[in-house]
Formats: sequence, C-alpha cells, structure tokens
Amino acid sequence: MAISSLVWPCLFQYIGTVPRLVTRCQRKTRSIWNRTATLSRIEKKATEPLEALLFLPSLQWNISNIAKRNLHTSQFHLQEVMLTCERYRVERLPFARISDSDLTFFEHLLPGRVITDAEELKPFNVDWLKSVRGCSTVLLKPRTTMEVSQILKYCNEKNLAVNPQGGNTGLVGGSVPVFDEIILSTGLMNQIISFDHISGILICQAGCILENLNQYLEPKGFVMPLDLGAKGSCHIGGNVATNAGGLRLLRYGSLRGTVLGLEVVLADGSILNCLASLRKDNTGYDLKQLFIGSEGTLGMVTAVSILCPRKPNAVNLAFLACPSFSQVLRTFITCKDMLGEILSAYEFMDDGCMKLVERHLKLTNPVTESPFYVLIETSGSNSTHDEEKLSHFLEHVMGSDLVVDGTLASEGKKIKALWALRERITEALTCDGVVYKYDISLPVEKLYDLVTDMKVRLDTAAKNVVGYGHLGDGNLHLNVTAESYSHSLLDAIEPYVYEWVSQYYGSISAEHGLGFKKKHYIHYSKPKEAILLMQQFKVMLDPKGILNPYKTLPSKAEQ
Amino acid sequence: MAISSLVWPCLFQYIGTVPRLVTRCQRKTRSIWNRTATLSRIEKKATEPLEALLFLPSLQWNISNIAKRNLHTSQFHLQEVMLTCERYRVERLPFARISDSDLTFFEHLLPGRVITDAEELKPFNVDWLKSVRGCSTVLLKPRTTMEVSQILKYCNEKNLAVNPQGGNTGLVGGSVPVFDEIILSTGLMNQIISFDHISGILICQAGCILENLNQYLEPKGFVMPLDLGAKGSCHIGGNVATNAGGLRLLRYGSLRGTVLGLEVVLADGSILNCLASLRKDNTGYDLKQLFIGSEGTLGMVTAVSILCPRKPNAVNLAFLACPSFSQVLRTFITCKDMLGEILSAYEFMDDGCMKLVERHLKLTNPVTESPFYVLIETSGSNSTHDEEKLSHFLEHVMGSDLVVDGTLASEGKKIKALWALRERITEALTCDGVVYKYDISLPVEKLYDLVTDMKVRLDTAAKNVVGYGHLGDGNLHLNVTAESYSHSLLDAIEPYVYEWVSQYYGSISAEHGLGFKKKHYIHYSKPKEAILLMQQFKVMLDPKGILNPYKTLPSKAEQ
Repeated sequence: MAISSLVWPCLFQYIGTVPRLVTRCQRKTRSIWNRTATLSRIEKKATEPLEALLFLPSLQWNISNIAKRNLHTSQFHLQEVMLTCERYRVERLPFARISDSDLTFFEHLLPGRVITDAEELKPFNVDWLKSVRGCSTVLLKPRTTMEVSQILKYCNEKNLAVNPQGGNTGLVGGSVPVFDEIILSTGLMNQIISFDHISGILICQAGCILENLNQYLEPKGFVMPLDLGAKGSCHIGGNVATNAGGLRLLRYGSLRGTVLGLEVVLADGSILNCLASLRKDNTGYDLKQLFIGSEGTLGMVTAVSILCPRKPNAVNLAFLACPSFSQVLRTFITCKDMLGEILSAYEFMDDGCMKLVERHLKLTNPVTESPFYVLIETSGSNSTHDEEKLSHFLEHVMGSDLVVDGTLASEGKKIKALWALRERITEALTCDGVVYKYDISLPVEKLYDLVTDMKVRLDTAAKNVVGYGHLGDGNLHLNVTAESYSHSLLDAIEPYVYEWVSQYYGSISAEHGLGFKKKHYIHYSKPKEAILLMQQFKVMLDPKGILNPYKTLPSKAEQ
Repeated sequence: MAISSLVWPCLFQYIGTVPRLVTRCQRKTRSIWNRTATLSRIEKKATEPLEALLFLPSLQWNISNIAKRNLHTSQFHLQEVMLTCERYRVERLPFARISDSDLTFFEHLLPGRVITDAEELKPFNVDWLKSVRGCSTVLLKPRTTMEVSQILKYCNEKNLAVNPQGGNTGLVGGSVPVFDEIILSTGLMNQIISFDHISGILICQAGCILENLNQYLEPKGFVMPLDLGAKGSCHIGGNVATNAGGLRLLRYGSLRGTVLGLEVVLADGSILNCLASLRKDNTGYDLKQLFIGSEGTLGMVTAVSILCPRKPNAVNLAFLACPSFSQVLRTFITCKDMLGEILSAYEFMDDGCMKLVERHLKLTNPVTESPFYVLIETSGSNSTHDEEKLSHFLEHVMGSDLVVDGTLASEGKKIKALWALRERITEALTCDGVVYKYDISLPVEKLYDLVTDMKVRLDTAAKNVVGYGHLGDGNLHLNVTAESYSHSLLDAIEPYVYEWVSQYYGSISAEHGLGFKKKHYIHYSKPKEAILLMQQFKVMLDPKGILNPYKTLPSKAEQ
C-alpha cells in the first residue's frame, strides 16, 4: 500500500480528541515540503503547541518516509513531536522507575534483546502519525510466550508499567508509551505455528506481519480474513488486540467470528491458553473475546488461531451512478438479493467527493454525473457466474429508477482505476484545505442524514461537507473542509456530531479503537453501566494497572 | 421438526455425566411403549435409581408428547422424574427461602403473572429430557426489561436464587432449577422491536421463539442466521445464552459474529444496554460476548440485536460415496474450492451409519456401497449457477479417485430423502440397542481417528462403533452400541474418550454447553487458568451467586 493511504485517513483521528488536530494540504506547498530542508521548519513548528495542532499531511508523509529510512541511525531526530505528557498534561501514575537491577534481570532473560539506546528507541516511542510520543528507556524483544510471561510477572511484582507494541500502526495513540512504560514488542514473535489446509485454520505467533501471513497463505489457496492499509507493518497480535476491521469485513465478518483461539499472558504473568482451533466449543465463558479489542490493557496476546477463507478465483467491480441516497439504499437491497453470496464490498460516495477527486487528482468520472456513486465488488469461485450475476444486476438496476449509469470491470487495470475513485477521496480532501474528519458507525438508513444535517448546520462556514464510506458495514466517513482552521467551525461540529451519533446508538469509533486519544469520548457510544463494568474487568485482570496505562478507559477520576 | 430428532440426540448427553445414562430401543418394544398403560411402568422404574439411568428412547418420546399435551392439566403426573437434588446428591446453597412477603412483592409487580400452582409449575421444573427436576414454587413472567430488573434487584437484596428460563429446550440441565430457585421466564417477552430491511438487523425481546422469528423474516426475504431442531420452542434469548450452534453455522458463522448487541440485566438488577445494531464498533471491551454462552449465570438476556442473512433463492444437495476418510477430507478441500461461497453444509457418515439406517429404518442407499458418504448442501442466489457449480464439482471428483459414486437433488422431495439418510442416523442407532453417544469438536483431520481408535479399543465389547457429523464444523458424533448396558463397557469408553479429545485440544461439548450435567468435565477442554478466570468473572458479576446456581462452572470445592 502507499503510505499515504494509511496516513491521510488517520489524521482525522485528531479531530475530536484532546487536543484536536486538523489536516491541511495546499497542493502548491507539496514540492516545498518534499525537501529535506523543511525538517528545520518542522522542528520549529513542533515547539509551538498551537501550530503543532495544524499538521500538514504532505509533511506527515515525508516524516513517515524519512523516519522509516532512518529508523536505526542517529542522523534523524524526532524532536518535532512533543512529548505526550507535556502536550496533553497527563499526570504520571505512581509506577516504579526502571533501575539497573531491572535491566540486569531483563538482559539475563533476553540476552541481546534489550534495547536501551536512545536513538534506537525513538521510532518505538512515537506513533505512526507523529502525534504522540513517550519517553520509554527500554524496549524488550521476547521470542517466546514464556519470556513474555516472565517479563510480565517481574514487572507486576516490581510495579513497572508496560506498553505492549506490535507494528505500531495504531491511529489513536494506543501503541506507544505515554511516559516511560517498558515497550514490550512482538517484533521477534513471528513464527507460524501451524496451518491446516483442510479447515483453513492458521495458528501463529502474535508478531507475524499481516501481509506476510497473506503471502504465506495465497500459494495454498487461502487468504487472511482481514485486509488493512497497514498490512505491510501491522502485526496479527495488534490486529486482534484492536479488533481491526478493514476491507474484508462485509464478506468475512469481524475478528470476533474468525479468531478461534488466543494465547494471552495476563498482567501477573500467568499464561491463558485458549488457542483452540475449533469452530464449535461451548465449555464455559468465551474468555478470548474479552481480549479481542482490549488494546493491550487486559493482557498481551502472544498467539492467534484464525479461520482463513479460500482465496476467491474471480473479482469483479461495478461503478454506478445513483440519483439519491434513497436509491443508494434500494440498490444495496437489490444488490444483496441478486449478488448475494458473492458481494464483497458496497461502498458509496457523494457528488462532493467525486468533484474533489476530479478537481484535485484529475481523475475522470467514468459515469454520468449524479448526486451519488456506488462501488460494488464481487469475489467468487467462478468468474463466468460472477460476471453473469453482475450483468443481470446491472441490467435490472439500470432498467429501473435506481441507477442512471454504470460501468463494469473485471481486469486488473480497470478495477484499480475504479477503486482509485473511492480510495483516493481522503487524498483529494487534504488538497481541498483544512479537513475535519469523522469515522463513525450508524444504522445504515441514517448514514447520510448526518451529512445532510451538517451541510445545513455549517452552511457557508464550511468549504465542503462530503460523505462516503463502507455502506455495507454502516460505516460513514464524514468530512468537512475549510480554507483555514477555525475554532468556531470546530465548535459548530463538536460535540454536535458525537451527540448526533449517540442519539442513534452509533459508534464514535467504528474500527480504530479508543487508545489514548479517544478514551474520553467513550460515553457517547457506551452507557455508564458498561463503562463501569469495563473498569471492573480492568481492575480484576490487572489490579496494579501496569498494562498499557492511560489507554482505552477513562479513570474514574477522569469521568 | 419431529420431536424424535430433538430427543434422540439429546440422550447422549447423559453419557459421561453424573450419573451416566444410556439409551436403548428394541424395535419390537415400540408398540408396547406407545400404550398409555405403560405409564404405571414408567413410574415404577423411576422409583428405582439404577434402572432410572437406563432410559428407553421410545418411552422418552411418549413422555414428551404426553407431557406436552397435558402441560396445564393435573391429569398427568411427572413423579417418574427424580428430584435432581436427590439423584445427584447436591447440597443446597444457603439462599433464602421464598416467603409470603416475597410473593406479595412479586404479585404487586406482576399482577396475574406469578405462578405458584404446583401443577402449573411442573413442566417448568423438569427439563425436556425428563432427566433433571427442580422443586421451584414460583414462576415469574415479566413482560419488560424493567420488570426483570426490579425482580433481580429484589432477589439479590433478599438472597433469593433465580433460574432464568427460555423455551426450556436445553440438553444439559441448565434451564430448570436444581432446588427451589425462582423460575424467571422469558415467555411473555416476545415482542419484535425492529427490523431493518436494508441492513437485515433484527432487534427483539429475548422470549421470541426462533421459528416465529424465521416466519416473520421469510416474507421479507431474510432468514435467521441459526436453525435448530428445537426451533419451534426455543427462545432467541436462550439461544444466545447458550451460544446455540445448529445447522447454519458453516455458512453464517456463530452467534458471536451475528449477534450485534444485547440487553442484559445483571444480578443486582442493573440494566446493561449494549443493544447497538452496528457492524463496526470499537469503543471499549465487547461486554456482550461474555454473556453469549454464559448459560444465564452472569446475567439475564432481555433483548437481542442480530444480523440476518438474505433467504437463499436456491438450495441443492449432493450425496457422494467416498472410498476412505482421507478422500472425505480431500473432497472437502475440493468442495471449498469449487463451490466456495455457496457451500452451506458438508456432513459425513461412515458405512456403519448407512447399514443402520438401511437395516432399522429401511432407507435405501442411493449410491454405491462405500466406507464413507458425504452430504453436501449449497444455498445461493442463482439456481442455474449453483446447479452448474455442483455439476462441475461432481464431474471433477468422480473423474478423480475422490468419489466413487454420487447423486444430485434440487427439488424438495429428493432433497428431503437424501437429508433423511443423515438426519435419521440417531433414530436408527437407538434401534440398534444401548447407545453411548458423544458430541465433540476436534481438529478436522483428527475427526475420524477417534472412531477408528475406539473400534480397535472396544473390539467385540461393542456391537457397533460408528461416526458421523458436521465435518465442515469439525463436529463429530461418536456412537457406540451394545446389546445391553454394561459398566465395564462404559469404563472402557470413559474417561478415555475425554482424554483423547483433550489431547488434541478438542471440545467435550461442541454446542450444548455445560449446564448442570457437564460442568464437572470442563477441565478436559479448558485449562485451570481459564476456569479460575471464569470463576472470578462469576464472582464479580454475581457476588451472591443467585443467577442459575449449580450450573456451568464447578465451585472451587468441587474441583
């Protein structure tokens, strides 16, 4: 994947967090920011808290690239990222501070796998978005579950806080320390334990990179049941810990269904082996579910058992123009009926999005200009059948009032070009000015009402208010652009947008989790009884609170 | 469904529990047992503890029918079912006993919906299998969540034990009281709250009967994502509380994926509203998962939000003969490849099963006699495509060494006849003599090894050792028949069979749960760390232990 596709959409996470950040990209500034010389300017900006909130996406992209290239050199410094504890004014909890005897213990346990060099540690202290930065002085690289167990047992006894870390691709500040938590990396836990080519069940260590797993499976005729922009870096353990969604959710469901078993090390070092590879097992409570999506706050996932679907033999795409959102919904119903089991994506975008990709990226609208567009993907075992189904469907919807125009693709280049119209919206948005972005779940029939409502509410205060997203999953990306950042515009959007979502029992974080930056907004999506229960689970499983502190749940004092 | 299809398979639950029961059916005795006059004999047998363990299935069937017909009359007495507390020698926990003031409170809260008449209470005190019987003196029928909340708040304060009850179709003694627990029925909580015809999300109260929900959905072009033999009686709340599996699991996955939200009342009466109808929501821990499959021991499910798939337009069936189990497995792989997304069932049976249905039920083997048979069902949106796929698949496997013969069905009568070969195995088994039955999950490649192993181990001590089941779900039904009940044969099977399953990380209860009768066997499928954690959850959520006591988990003293 292009890094941009990961970085751009991530930025919206800043909006609505504390503090709220916005993105901006002036096309004319791109060439400037591409120069290494801009680094001094980055550093200057970062020392100014207010300006630091106004991140330029193209700058972000460069930093990411540079940081990646210079990961283990001392030539590149990340001083431009303010320390989280300073920017967010967080109070350090009374954990012990790491001592020489602690280091001696770790070095004895993991010879050569205890990183204390300040330069080496830098990229592990900073998140992908360069928005939060911890000041950990130790990174541990266990290879086995037993080592993780011994580390956590020791840390729990010594009251040392721990930050579990996978590929560090999280978007809500959940994967890096806030203070000096010990970083416990799954980087070396990258072994595939077994694959059953009959059942399609893969068992592997938590540190396996998603893309590597896919590459391992594809020659065997299987694929991972999830696919993400960050697949080249993210670890399967991190995917599970954050309940990652992604592009295949409509077809294969969430990790709650596909993850069959987990091995987890608890805060006190005890190993919970629920690594069964069974589709049916009703012997007691399903403990693994509690760890899926717990963002490393309840235990550290060390191994995963996951059900992998067969690799589809054929993929087809249709791009359609719809006269209204009501027609988008009716087309979705027809689509589910006529395409049924081969439907693998149903994405929508409004005309505002199309205008942005045309204007800023010079992409061409392949169909008649319309208020809405729909992208439908099918994945199946028989290309002839799938194409026939799509053609019949297309004939039907175009013969009715649902769709005014459409085009079909079944070969790589055209498929890619059609997907680009949808996938590059975020990129086009950043070229339109300052972007206020929201990633929310809503009941599907309410999905676009929020956009319409926001257009009326903001009126001329916004440059553009557009909506697109995974309609099939009830996942809307609401975007507001403006010429420049304005507190009054932000105040007009928030907390109105969260209240709106809350009113329809929607989710203020569809798939990215709460991490450090969204934990204070949980009450918009969860009742207080649920939050209280979550806090009780946390206390029960991690009484000293050493696992990924300051994340996911607000403390009782913060509520 | 025929009641027999529910009762016969249930009986195996007795094997391996305390005490272990066995089934026996001599065809010649059927006519005798069908006479009402046999009731006196039933009563006589039931007073004799040892004989009571030896249930006759045909007798069971009659009792079920009679009990159902006379549910609210005083003409039929259920004295033949021993009290659980006597048969299993359980110690009553120190809960309060219900008083007149308690009854006054309930009558005030639920006017006319407090049942205390002994005759009326009988069927709610006894399980479907007539194997366990409580002695509750009160049944409460709330209509609303608020009423459930008030009941539980009161019971928790007064230390009164409660037995949540849905359709009372559970097979492990989980749905009826052990002593005098108050029965809290979902019987009147049968309202559909909403159905979204775009997303297919249904929200309803816990007491809706599964079949009624299906009948509500079918005209709308949808089906429930689960289907069970007990669908005519079971409640969706009970399905969720027991994580029911059933016939559609291979295609639509488990309830852990399809249940999107729950409303649960906790032991202290607090209402946990996690009834969201969202496919994506990562705001904190997924609490609902803990209640799915917790068998009413952690909270009472009062409402369910569930994702319903489209009703398939076409259903096809293939019945194939395979020369070995290895070929059964290879056919499964080919099947997943060539049928892919339309595959909805992959069942297998060995030659022993076929001989039993031929001999005892006079069914005809439609294909060449072989060591193994496979039944494949497809469900799809386009009948022509589905038939083509199945034909191509059949040509391929019959052209190779995988399959020696096969037949295809796409119309109702022939489909039913082919399904009967697989569905009526349990019935045929009961006509073969005493049956020792086991319902287990195993890694799919190990599935038949247990049967082979058991054949060698038991040799002539057994009349028949056969295996069949849901290969696609890794779910094996192992069955051993003998001319008469023998402790030595049972001892040769158990605990060997559980140890065997445990060795391959299998499950000793694939889908029926642990309830009252299997809770002592949990350690064969779950490590002690997991059991300990489950006990901690129980204590945290229900400190007084009032919710469905004596069920699911062994107490620490019992371990």
